[in-house]
Amino acid sequence: MNFASDNAYGVSPEIIDALVQVNEGASSSYGGDEITAQLGEEMCKLFETDVAVFPVPSGTGANALALSTMVPSFGAVLCHEEAHINVDECGAVELYSGGCKLIGLPGAGAQLTAEGLKARLAGFVRGDHDPRRCAVSITQASELGTVYSLAEIGAIGAVCKEHGMKLHLDGARFANALVSLDCTPAEMTWKAGVDAVSFGVSKNGGMITDAVVFFDTSLAEDFDRRRLQGGQLIAKGRYASAQILAYLKDDLWLHNARHANAMAQKLSSGLEGVEGVRLHAPTQANEVFAVLPASVHGALQEAGAVYHCWPPNPNSGPVPSEPGEVLARLVTSFAASEEDVDRFVTAAG
Amino acid sequence: MNFASDNAYGVSPEIIDALVQVNEGASSSYGGDEITAQLGEEMCKLFETDVAVFPVPSGTGANALALSTMVPSFGAVLCHEEAHINVDECGAVELYSGGCKLIGLPGAGAQLTAEGLKARLAGFVRGDHDPRRCAVSITQASELGTVYSLAEIGAIGAVCKEHGMKLHLDGARFANALVSLDCTPAEMTWKAGVDAVSFGVSKNGGMITDAVVFFDTSLAEDFDRRRLQGGQLIAKGRYASAQILAYLKDDLWLHNARHANAMAQKLSSGLEGVEGVRLHAPTQANEVFAVLPASVHGALQEAGAVYHCWPPNPNSGPVPSEPGEVLARLVTSFAASEEDVDRFVTAAG
Amino acid sequence: MNFASDNAYGVSPEIIDALVQVNEGASSSYGGDEITAQLGEEMCKLFETDVAVFPVPSGTGANALALSTMVPSFGAVLCHEEAHINVDECGAVELYSGGCKLIGLPGAGAQLTAEGLKARLAGFVRGDHDPRRCAVSITQASELGTVYSLAEIGAIGAVCKEHGMKLHLDGARFANALVSLDCTPAEMTWKAGVDAVSFGVSKNGGMITDAVVFFDTSLAEDFDRRRLQGGQLIAKGRYASAQILAYLKDDLWLHNARHANAMAQKLSSGLEGVEGVRLHAPTQANEVFAVLPASVHGALQEAGAVYHCWPPNPNSGPVPSEPGEVLARLVTSFAASEEDVDRFVTAAG
Amino acid sequence: MNFASDNAYGVSPEIIDALVQVNEGASSSYGGDEITAQLGEEMCKLFETDVAVFPVPSGTGANALALSTMVPSFGAVLCHEEAHINVDECGAVELYSGGCKLIGLPGAGAQLTAEGLKARLAGFVRGDHDPRRCAVSITQASELGTVYSLAEIGAIGAVCKEHGMKLHLDGARFANALVSLDCTPAEMTWKAGVDAVSFGVSKNGGMITDAVVFFDTSLAEDFDRRRLQGGQLIAKGRYASAQILAYLKDDLWLHNARHANAMAQKLSSGLEGVEGVRLHAPTQANEVFAVLPASVHGALQEAGAVYHCWPPNPNSGPVPSEPGEVLARLVTSFAASEEDVDRFVTAAG
Repeated sequence: MNFASDNAYGVSPEIIDALVQVNEGASSSYGGDEITAQLGEEMCKLFETDVAVFPVPSGTGANALALSTMVPSFGAVLCHEEAHINVDECGAVELYSGGCKLIGLPGAGAQLTAEGLKARLAGFVRGDHDPRRCAVSITQASELGTVYSLAEIGAIGAVCKEHGMKLHLDGARFANALVSLDCTPAEMTWKAGVDAVSFGVSKNGGMITDAVVFFDTSLAEDFDRRRLQGGQLIAKGRYASAQILAYLKDDLWLHNARHANAMAQKLSSGLEGVEGVRLHAPTQANEVFAVLPASVHGALQEAGAVYHCWPPNPNSGPVPSEPGEVLARLVTSFAASEEDVDRFVTAAG
Repeated sequence: MNFASDNAYGVSPEIIDALVQVNEGASSSYGGDEITAQLGEEMCKLFETDVAVFPVPSGTGANALALSTMVPSFGAVLCHEEAHINVDECGAVELYSGGCKLIGLPGAGAQLTAEGLKARLAGFVRGDHDPRRCAVSITQASELGTVYSLAEIGAIGAVCKEHGMKLHLDGARFANALVSLDCTPAEMTWKAGVDAVSFGVSKNGGMITDAVVFFDTSLAEDFDRRRLQGGQLIAKGRYASAQILAYLKDDLWLHNARHANAMAQKLSSGLEGVEGVRLHAPTQANEVFAVLPASVHGALQEAGAVYHCWPPNPNSGPVPSEPGEVLARLVTSFAASEEDVDRFVTAAG
Repeated sequence: MNFASDNAYGVSPEIIDALVQVNEGASSSYGGDEITAQLGEEMCKLFETDVAVFPVPSGTGANALALSTMVPSFGAVLCHEEAHINVDECGAVELYSGGCKLIGLPGAGAQLTAEGLKARLAGFVRGDHDPRRCAVSITQASELGTVYSLAEIGAIGAVCKEHGMKLHLDGARFANALVSLDCTPAEMTWKAGVDAVSFGVSKNGGMITDAVVFFDTSLAEDFDRRRLQGGQLIAKGRYASAQILAYLKDDLWLHNARHANAMAQKLSSGLEGVEGVRLHAPTQANEVFAVLPASVHGALQEAGAVYHCWPPNPNSGPVPSEPGEVLARLVTSFAASEEDVDRFVTAAG
Repeated sequence: MNFASDNAYGVSPEIIDALVQVNEGASSSYGGDEITAQLGEEMCKLFETDVAVFPVPSGTGANALALSTMVPSFGAVLCHEEAHINVDECGAVELYSGGCKLIGLPGAGAQLTAEGLKARLAGFVRGDHDPRRCAVSITQASELGTVYSLAEIGAIGAVCKEHGMKLHLDGARFANALVSLDCTPAEMTWKAGVDAVSFGVSKNGGMITDAVVFFDTSLAEDFDRRRLQGGQLIAKGRYASAQILAYLKDDLWLHNARHANAMAQKLSSGLEGVEGVRLHAPTQANEVFAVLPASVHGALQEAGAVYHCWPPNPNSGPVPSEPGEVLARLVTSFAASEEDVDRFVTAAG
């Protein structure tokens, strides 16, 4: 019953198989190989447009590198105050940009709104003493497991365009959001105004790779140098690209995400039936945030359940109010078992 | 006949197997797992002392992160002018340190000498207008495939100690140097004054991982933060650690390196017998640098041999002097076949 | 009637005179001169302890350089969300530290409280995914013209000490706060736990210089290099040091500050008597923040008064609520004339 | 007899006077004042084209800020290996660019040549593993007191243009070079392909200011933010601009430079008549580099002469070869007296 992270469970067997199969013969290193070239083609098909794609070994790397193309040292990125880039990456964007500023905005469900964004932009009244506002970063699915609608992304994209800002989407859980919306990758990204995506692979069945995908390919100029300078160019590049190709093949990624989301729904529904439990945010992807009474938390711990207690934010929903209550973050991965979910709900109840 | 890079060939089957085996059950992410803990123990045994070890996805990452613990933005790292960190990593050390200076020194065989180092240090006459001299970085085996003797490392280590500087060893080809010297890992590192090593795995049979190893463990404080900030913390850490454990198990790494070195010796000897070919530097690890006459280069290209032409440095040895001559870099990996070497020499001759 | 900034009016005649007098003969450059040495001695006397003092050409430079000695790229500085370093310096601290994070806290009067600080520190629950919390920066007098009591500074200093953090004081208006508290420089700084001060000179009658003063002199190691690297080492250093010596001589700085504060009190009292005007924060130094009704604002504009309209923060006090109301920031400098204040109040009333 | 630096002597009386005169009334701060506006107009006239000009408090600041507009973290600036930016500024360009690389080239007289530049550019053979070559920086007059001819600058400018690189001119001794060449400011800069100049003021009679001048005004976009972020925006900007206006008025700057150069010529000629003294480089501006025999050096020290011994570079000219010989750097400022020069030569001889 490990619901601590979607990184806790292993790698999709299909992806392991792909690594075994690619382990033949010689090829160019540093991404000059044929498998990486094939990945580029597949991604263009997937997104129905010309994209530039760069595998990188981590989601933090993807975020920092992608945003470094958008913001100089004297610029600012607007994001949710609970955004992973703001609170969980130890200043990666700041390092890669040479000292930019992340400006965190409030918002329910760990989501920005076009209105909130406009209001904050109106606060840039200091002229050159303010940093240049360069980019907005949203997380889809969000850090509280909620999912922006296409209209919401589009509205944020429109604000960005109006202010000459770029729009980045942290897609560590891109697939989970995509199947939740039941839309195309193009609709969730460039058609809504997104310029670049951190395309998550590792959390949804990959081993060691994520990728940066640019729709505004002018941002990709010199990206090879940025990635190398960051130490994020994988020498044997085909072992990264092969993971992503296997991830996409036969819709493995969508299959994995649907399962994870379904398990989250089941878990969420089960918990809602437990006395005293309140959802902190709606369950729209593969994460459940629930306030657990002390007795429920105790029973789960005793049963050996593994999960993180999360810092609560009253802006989003119910928070712990009684002694011993906790806000639990429960993440269901592609490998979550129905039995574990049932056992968890039973132990809670 | 691909001698372009030790990254060109694949992954040792034992390492692939280890990845398949580790793909079971759940574990903590971000390096908090048991396999990573086991790696820490194995490395202490291997180096016969207390070390701190951190897997990272690339050698460039290992170098930049290791050196960032030694040098502030206003400091300098002394290295060979042809050092990988100076000419092949697009400013990674500079980025991670916030703007430090790499000071490149000349020297035959892409090696520093204690004497050369002392002479350069004597040139720090500008007081606070000079950067603080903080660290020396040497590459073992060197960028020209030569190997520092233990006495040479020790002499450099002594200069560092005398000047209050740290000593970093870029060990992208650590194993190749080690078997060439036939010494222990301890002798080649901390016993000779080395404070930290970029421990190469990927070039010698690994997939996606290298590691930083600290002997001066005070440098490791906050390294977890540095690694995360650099986007170089692998989420599913056990898949990196498992590679390294398999790499070390039953001396796989030494076996791989011995084979690669033997193939380089064979190639080197074979080429020396070819009319007009001159070695640019002695072959002491798994790389051969040879000046090839135009006719030899042409014949090899025709035969489909793959290798890089290298920028020649007259300080080290013979360089191209006739029209059409090239300096070829020939790298033999753990997977180089005797047949390929034979075919290559035959095609050259 | 220019109340836009304490930088709007010129330089104290005594300081101009000092520059004329120092313009004789030759001396060492880059701060190696006798006048700079004399400044060091005077500052030790002034602060009644051993300090290290470094003139720099701007307050932003002083803040960024001072904090860069306390916080690495992966660290964080806690400050008020309206702190000058957070909203008015375009990422200077971030640049100088190589990418650190400023974490802005709310608080009335643009002041931190020990309690608020403790609460925020308790939110550091992510271990190595959080930046290292390295320093706290407070502004005295604050960005809203309020003044921390000695007890308040001491309480913040105690929290810092308990958490192994350094305490920086942005003293752009150090003198104004000092005379407001009627205490000694030692009491307002190191005796209360302050490790370094950005010692403001330019706003209170100087020309082009401020200074960094370290009480924790271990932080000053290599500061000469930092200052040079930042382009903030003044070549003809004696022209900076001479300004500061003249500033301190015969208590010129205290005289200037007392006048400025008295003018602010007069202005504040005058405005309180005007119908509809509400103070946004108490007037404790040389700044008045007042909500002006549309009619008052209009009358003042018509009379030619110059001042900035400020972004209001409801946490601190009354904010504009009626159409046309503005929050005016009125700064009185050492050169503010009583007549101007009277004319202003009359025009307002 | 202080020939240590052109910073050793004071400030031109005309510039001191201008500071006294400007010390009246109120004006906008941070460069929004009328005197700064007037400076912009004067500089356009002076350079006979549309320029953007920004006062900054130091030459190092001017260099670092100017180059930061031209080179990203993954880029490189080519300069002479003895360039001030490379050996005397403690990594300022590296800091401001977030980690760029300075690539030092050899060359007599501390000068680059178009040929040497082309040869080095041809060594960029590693593709994306090389940093992007973004800019060239030359120093006029050079660090060895030599002066580029207009044709030499033009040839370097042409190489830059051909390779898409920007050309920066470090003009710490701009005036000295200008009067040496007897040309117009336009001819020495944009007409020869220069995109930006660090316009030296302080070494030639100024107090605390230099300036950045952009001919490619697209580089000036966001320069206000860069300057503020660097802590190099002078709050009371009119006191910087007034210095520069006085410096230009009635050709004070040319007058000062002509005097300094004439004194250097006199000193140089005098020393050439002293037995055993050899010039290390031709005297073309206001610096003399001469190898002094031990006896001469001793006699000068005894006579109380002040100057720096310089690290010799055999590429440029004669270097110390006998025991006790030194390479002396003798700088004559605008305030150097003929008597001092005579006394110096007499003491030497």
